[in-house]
Amino acid sequence: MDMGMLSEGLTQVLIPAAALVGIGFALLQWLMVSKVRVSSDSVANNGYNDGLIEEGEEEEEAVDNLDVSIKCAEIQNAISLGATSFLFTEYKYLSIFVGVFGAVIFLFLGSVKGFSIKSEPCTYNPGNMCKPALANADFSTIAFLLGALTSTLSGFLGMKIATYANARTTLEARKGVGKAFITAFRSGAVMGFLLAANGLLVLYISINLFKLYYGDDWEGLYESITGYGLGGSSMALFGRVGGGIYTKAADVGADLVGKVERNIPEDDPRNPAVIADNVGDNVGDIAGMGSDLFGSYAESSCAALFVASISSFGITHDYAAMSYPLIISSMGIVVCLITTLFATYLFEIKNVSEIEPSLKRQLLISTVLMTAGIAMVSFFAIPSEFTLYNFGTDKTVKNWHLFFCVAIGLWAGLVIGYTTEYYTSNAYSPVQDVADSCRTGAATNVIFGLALGYKSVIIPIFSIAVAIYVSFSLASMYGIAMAALGMLSTIATGLAIDAYGPICDNAGGIAEMAGMSHKIRERTDALDAAGNTTAAIGKGFAIGSAALVSLALFGAFVSRAGINSVDVLTPKVFIGLIVGAMLPYWFSAMTMKSVGSAALKMVEEVRRQFNTIPGLMEGTAKPDYATCVKISTDASLREMIPPGALVVLTPLVAGTFFGVETLAGVLAGSLVSGVQVAISASNTGGAWDNAKKYIEAGISEHAKSLGPKGSDAHKAAIIGDTIGDPLKDTSGPSLNILIKLMAVESLVFAPFFAKHGGILFKIL
Amino acid sequence: MDMGMLSEGLTQVLIPAAALVGIGFALLQWLMVSKVRVSSDSVANNGYNDGLIEEGEEEEEAVDNLDVSIKCAEIQNAISLGATSFLFTEYKYLSIFVGVFGAVIFLFLGSVKGFSIKSEPCTYNPGNMCKPALANADFSTIAFLLGALTSTLSGFLGMKIATYANARTTLEARKGVGKAFITAFRSGAVMGFLLAANGLLVLYISINLFKLYYGDDWEGLYESITGYGLGGSSMALFGRVGGGIYTKAADVGADLVGKVERNIPEDDPRNPAVIADNVGDNVGDIAGMGSDLFGSYAESSCAALFVASISSFGITHDYAAMSYPLIISSMGIVVCLITTLFATYLFEIKNVSEIEPSLKRQLLISTVLMTAGIAMVSFFAIPSEFTLYNFGTDKTVKNWHLFFCVAIGLWAGLVIGYTTEYYTSNAYSPVQDVADSCRTGAATNVIFGLALGYKSVIIPIFSIAVAIYVSFSLASMYGIAMAALGMLSTIATGLAIDAYGPICDNAGGIAEMAGMSHKIRERTDALDAAGNTTAAIGKGFAIGSAALVSLALFGAFVSRAGINSVDVLTPKVFIGLIVGAMLPYWFSAMTMKSVGSAALKMVEEVRRQFNTIPGLMEGTAKPDYATCVKISTDASLREMIPPGALVVLTPLVAGTFFGVETLAGVLAGSLVSGVQVAISASNTGGAWDNAKKYIEAGISEHAKSLGPKGSDAHKAAIIGDTIGDPLKDTSGPSLNILIKLMAVESLVFAPFFAKHGGILFKIL
Repeated sequence: MDMGMLSEGLTQVLIPAAALVGIGFALLQWLMVSKVRVSSDSVANNGYNDGLIEEGEEEEEAVDNLDVSIKCAEIQNAISLGATSFLFTEYKYLSIFVGVFGAVIFLFLGSVKGFSIKSEPCTYNPGNMCKPALANADFSTIAFLLGALTSTLSGFLGMKIATYANARTTLEARKGVGKAFITAFRSGAVMGFLLAANGLLVLYISINLFKLYYGDDWEGLYESITGYGLGGSSMALFGRVGGGIYTKAADVGADLVGKVERNIPEDDPRNPAVIADNVGDNVGDIAGMGSDLFGSYAESSCAALFVASISSFGITHDYAAMSYPLIISSMGIVVCLITTLFATYLFEIKNVSEIEPSLKRQLLISTVLMTAGIAMVSFFAIPSEFTLYNFGTDKTVKNWHLFFCVAIGLWAGLVIGYTTEYYTSNAYSPVQDVADSCRTGAATNVIFGLALGYKSVIIPIFSIAVAIYVSFSLASMYGIAMAALGMLSTIATGLAIDAYGPICDNAGGIAEMAGMSHKIRERTDALDAAGNTTAAIGKGFAIGSAALVSLALFGAFVSRAGINSVDVLTPKVFIGLIVGAMLPYWFSAMTMKSVGSAALKMVEEVRRQFNTIPGLMEGTAKPDYATCVKISTDASLREMIPPGALVVLTPLVAGTFFGVETLAGVLAGSLVSGVQVAISASNTGGAWDNAKKYIEAGISEHAKSLGPKGSDAHKAAIIGDTIGDPLKDTSGPSLNILIKLMAVESLVFAPFFAKHGGILFKIL
Repeated sequence: MDMGMLSEGLTQVLIPAAALVGIGFALLQWLMVSKVRVSSDSVANNGYNDGLIEEGEEEEEAVDNLDVSIKCAEIQNAISLGATSFLFTEYKYLSIFVGVFGAVIFLFLGSVKGFSIKSEPCTYNPGNMCKPALANADFSTIAFLLGALTSTLSGFLGMKIATYANARTTLEARKGVGKAFITAFRSGAVMGFLLAANGLLVLYISINLFKLYYGDDWEGLYESITGYGLGGSSMALFGRVGGGIYTKAADVGADLVGKVERNIPEDDPRNPAVIADNVGDNVGDIAGMGSDLFGSYAESSCAALFVASISSFGITHDYAAMSYPLIISSMGIVVCLITTLFATYLFEIKNVSEIEPSLKRQLLISTVLMTAGIAMVSFFAIPSEFTLYNFGTDKTVKNWHLFFCVAIGLWAGLVIGYTTEYYTSNAYSPVQDVADSCRTGAATNVIFGLALGYKSVIIPIFSIAVAIYVSFSLASMYGIAMAALGMLSTIATGLAIDAYGPICDNAGGIAEMAGMSHKIRERTDALDAAGNTTAAIGKGFAIGSAALVSLALFGAFVSRAGINSVDVLTPKVFIGLIVGAMLPYWFSAMTMKSVGSAALKMVEEVRRQFNTIPGLMEGTAKPDYATCVKISTDASLREMIPPGALVVLTPLVAGTFFGVETLAGVLAGSLVSGVQVAISASNTGGAWDNAKKYIEAGISEHAKSLGPKGSDAHKAAIIGDTIGDPLKDTSGPSLNILIKLMAVESLVFAPFFAKHGGILFKIL
């Protein structure tokens, strides 16, 4: 077996270099955003002289109004403080979980060989000696902790950037939609690049540090590194669920009293839940999404590395080929950097209708460039022919096979992104049909919206199926993992346009609260409508990649657990399959009920304040924001435990009591069922939100005939929007973590299940 | 291998005898119902002298009011005519489908051996000679036609009985809730027994006729008899989908204008869509459900017979053991007969709160008695030890193993029934919580309702999983088929309490239209609320049994297609699995959109009539019912084609182009995903309907605090109810046919796919 053209030394330079470039670029973007001042000396000399922004609209209104600027700073501060304080409280509780679960990992894995410290024959290469099982327990636990830490950091940094950017976007919106767009987009890019580069760097450093101990035992090294993925995904689970409940309890509660009962606008400062709502956007949609995509990234890298380590790359110790997943990610950072320059320097946003095309173009550019990048990497890093471990047999693969695997994942991602856009943007007929159905009331709106969500599943599933078939056929489980990584290779761009959404949502909120003019609010609303679509696209990516990642992890688990097939037509597997397919429903029931109950509490509190605080409706008295923040905080921390426990405990229970076959069934079932529920939930929610915005904006004759705000059709649309909130921001996006986390957890615990699992059937 | 104690001769007597007893009992019940007269000479001397009905309430109001009786007769006539005319139109179109599909079956199966008329070595027993493949094509086509005919007959008879019973139930409601209950229940029993007995008799006769040709070639005989199941399910598909769209287009359309815009009560005769709505109950919930459950019954019998024919029963030509599935069904008819006597003679209904317990008791009694019946049959008909075909290997099974298989299916059905009742009856907290959430509007109602539906999946799935594990482990695929048949063994009782629901729904409609007093309407509403629950229970049974049936058919398909395992970790199977899991969403999107669009058309027509017909609102002019009937008819006939095509074509396309492995994946995926969607959809819908009824009835302090009719909470509840309509009566219940039909179709076409399938992969 020959080696690729890339030397080990060059690989060792290129990967950290790319990560550092990514971090540097993120800091540069941050610097540019920071030039928008939100204190009293703002706006004057704001540092933009790139000629990008429409001259005609500039400086048009209140640009030097100090009061507004100070108010924005105040609100931003309140949101940032609220978000920081919630995340710290959340992390406090999660640190207990991390401690306990870390101990469980150590004990379970240590017990596989009775905590022996003797070296053992390797599992896949029994001629060689590998490090003891106890080392695997030690290092898996360490990797888990590192993953949890990096995930937390990713979420936290994202939140910090978003709350730093929101008021700046509002202030820039006074100068025109283009300036506001660029501010929000740059801030999103900060998050995207920091996260992508960070994830890569920490993984790279960990592998090199672990290698100091493991040396030539790559099998043990890459098996223990999978803990990194588990750590990332566990934090993401709680981040998504906790953040999701937080944000939607506040959002639904605020809307139900504010918009429906009191007839005051969204984000009106008189609404006591308004700060909680805006904090929620940052802890749920930003921090949660950041942790989630980081988790996907970490897991697909780990899955690919694990399979590679037991294939010819690992056996012949070809470091460059082994690092192929990391080099692909490095290339992704460079590609995304170039792509971002297109948005910030080449194409100018002059009016709202250009926002969505511009964001879509980002996806297309990054995909096209990355395809070339993948070809380069595959040609240089990978030997022209090599063998892969394929459930007990060897499979011969060529380097251009791998190119196709990664590229098809990448392009499947683009198809999913574009499909999602079609179904959730109000520029196309599906959302317009949903809006039209509001004529006959909320019931038809809901029926059409649910049907839209169901329908939106078709194309993504076919593209995932094609990606799976091609990559699976060409390069087995490694191919699937690489397809997942291909989809995630442009994660920096994906996250940038995704984070853009909640930033604009917040910007709109701040404009409303600071009492800015109707015109500004219209601009932020237009930015936000595009943001709803990009958020849905981001969720589409998250789900699509989660499906591929989970399948790769599932395959790695099956390999590691020592079974060679997962036959549906055996009772053990089939009951796993059907129960697994049920789990997304159980999980969604929990999270939706949690949002519902927390929202009811919020409604009571908001009503109480309106009824008991004199002058609140008139705007002469200030509401008690803190109590609402507390309700959301308490609800989310309490309610995230049962769904979290369901996800974390299921693989442990299934593996320990029912054994690896049933667990394999559970993983397959939850994967194929969860993907559908997740895609349909997030698209339905996105469509309802944009159907409402379509009626509000009234940009076409048709839209005008349904509006204006306050019409019966608009009221029906608000009901749909409210129902969609928990679907699209709590239960839907949490589901991809459900499927990923169960898979990576099964992989990490595979040695234990293979040794001690299936107690129940053994007794029977 | 020894034989069981039951001789062939006795078996040949017992089965038709049981079927004839069932038919006789059904006619007897019909006779008793017919004693309630709806013509001018009604009510006087109505023939009830069984002392069952509460004396105090009798003859209390307008019992001898001739006008009312004549009006009821008129309305009943209109509903019956509408339903008959729709079904005839539907059957006209379906006869084309049956002709075409019959030809496809013949051509595909005939082509397997090039239409050769030479005898061939048997597939499973190659030492013997079997009939030519062309005979299989002939007889499969004939069996298909017979199944289609019997299914059509089942649906049609059910509809006839229901429309015969509805006005009679209304008239009896004047005398008290007990009399009305017994009339509706007896009518349901007519349908239940006719259908169960008919299905058994036709199958029995067909087998005996086919045997004249096949002689000792039982392999060929029982392979071709599976066409009977396919015929039954194809009709059921169109019956369910077409009927479902019909009924819900009318219902949603009527409610949206009548209840919401015009503020007139449900079933008000001024509403132009009211006749279409009532017709719909009969063609959708009655005829559709009848065909559906007949299909399940036929398929599980066929699956069991097919597996048995290639096992030792078939090889040793043990006729009694071979007929075990039919004897179990015969025993079921006898057990249900006894169970019915409990309801009609032993327990008296004195007030509305006793209705639900009485119906629940029916389930329990039939289950307990049937358990003893199964033990008897298993002991007498089955040899103490025998072997079963198990994917290429032989499995030794004892007769008490089979007892456990059938019994666990039966009891799983009871658990599913009781769970469904808990989640959809307004006597328990889940529905009450949903009702309570209406305080904060329609949005929270919908969120809580969806969460309830998701949650209601958990216990049914676990019971199905346990049933599958036990029966699969004990007796492989034959065990699964027998578990399905166990669940369906009490089908006569199940259908009786299921048909009871739409009959009471119609009875309420007739009371309203005939201008009967508020009190009568309250009684029919109470009967109807219990009916919603029993309808949900019926759907639960239909889905649970469909899951087991499909798995059994799936196993039979895999056996027949000559593959020995369905390994999830092969690309061909996995893409089938994930696409299969998507199909229920695609299908639901179609059916829900169809209902939505048809409802919008109905709304326009109803609005048009209110706006253009002078005196309509005042009740001085008659609406144009016929146009609304036409809208529902046209919509349902047109819109049933795409979802029908999806279901019918998927196995053909997957099998022909992608081959048997992918098709196996599709079947498994659609099964495990479809079950969840179906259960949650029908329970969510049932819960919303009963939450609304809970608020309307105001039977507790809590309920009163949410009401009365017309309160904001009630309006929110109506929105939920309307959304639930297509979920519970169109998309949900059609899904179980989707999974069954695809499985039985695959089985019938298995010889073709095994020979010619997978063209696409062969080319690649």
